[in-house]
Amino acid sequence: MSEEAAREDKTPRTARGARTRRALLSAAGQEFGEKGFHEGSISGITRRAGCALGSFYTYFDSKDDIFRALVNDMSGQVRDYVSPRIAQARDGIDAERVGLLSFLEFARTHKEIYRIIDEAEFVDQAAYRAHYENTASRMAARLTKAAEKGDVRPDVEEVHAWAIMGMNVFLGLRYGVWDDSRPAEDIAAIANALVEKGIGRQS
Amino acid sequence: MSEEAAREDKTPRTARGARTRRALLSAAGQEFGEKGFHEGSISGITRRAGCALGSFYTYFDSKDDIFRALVNDMSGQVRDYVSPRIAQARDGIDAERVGLLSFLEFARTHKEIYRIIDEAEFVDQAAYRAHYENTASRMAARLTKAAEKGDVRPDVEEVHAWAIMGMNVFLGLRYGVWDDSRPAEDIAAIANALVEKGIGRQS
Repeated sequence: MSEEAAREDKTPRTARGARTRRALLSAAGQEFGEKGFHEGSISGITRRAGCALGSFYTYFDSKDDIFRALVNDMSGQVRDYVSPRIAQARDGIDAERVGLLSFLEFARTHKEIYRIIDEAEFVDQAAYRAHYENTASRMAARLTKAAEKGDVRPDVEEVHAWAIMGMNVFLGLRYGVWDDSRPAEDIAAIANALVEKGIGRQS
Repeated sequence: MSEEAAREDKTPRTARGARTRRALLSAAGQEFGEKGFHEGSISGITRRAGCALGSFYTYFDSKDDIFRALVNDMSGQVRDYVSPRIAQARDGIDAERVGLLSFLEFARTHKEIYRIIDEAEFVDQAAYRAHYENTASRMAARLTKAAEKGDVRPDVEEVHAWAIMGMNVFLGLRYGVWDDSRPAEDIAAIANALVEKGIGRQS
């Protein structure tokens, strides 16, 4: 049986199963967020989730397997928090302000996200790249649409998406995780003015 | 003896000692770059450096100690590569273009830098933060100077520095380490136009 088939086979078939799998993923977020991948353990995860070791293996093959699932899950959680908020934005530039603002909100309430996604660089390089490549692709698609509407310059491309994503990641680390004393709205407004008009001398 | 005093005590006192210490740091860059911190070993480092185990302990206390020294050393190498190039820039905006261009050049020839500095987040959080805080401080000081000369808007601040630094880090990862097929000059020019004028509709 291929690795993928083995994993698919572990998809929960009942609502109760889905709840257990979700509880294990949340527990894994706490365990790896606090202890890191190397120090974190399956027994630590099942203890936090309040479930038996056997249940763990019903849904996951190994510590590596739940870590990979957790990275994909957190990546999806960010997307699901940010995307509907962006959809309410006034225009293509405001969309990037709302995107950063909602990402800052998410990072402030899920401070473990950096530790988990950054550790994937060492534990599961494919999951790490997928997180950033998917985020950048969504952003590039958004910018292309905004260009079609005339909200942003017509030649926006992938480089702009990686630039803005990188900006957001570091602003989230600095003003979301390390120090959240400044209003998220202020950070988002300053960064958005940079994205809209740049910081060059206004001619 | 305090930890710091113990470490100071290990500073090489001769040119030959300085060369050995440098050889050990370069070997540590290869060892940790390839294997990561956990799999990397002191014996792997001394083998690569072609020196005896005893020499290692003449200059470093432990694997943690040489890792910390390596992160500080790589952080300093980036600064020493980028800073003199920035000093030749035409103006405050061009300085940021040259900063990114030279960082891309550095990342393309030192692809291990991401792996090492990013792993510091887990191995030595203080060294990790110091690298980014120092880089952002230098950038903020540069922007303030540029504002005094009228090259950039007068209200530039720390948020702009973290935004531009984050942009550079992710552009370096994407177009320096993962895929270096596009000319570094093009990436730097596109990002610099974003920093200067933004991507908003030009009114």
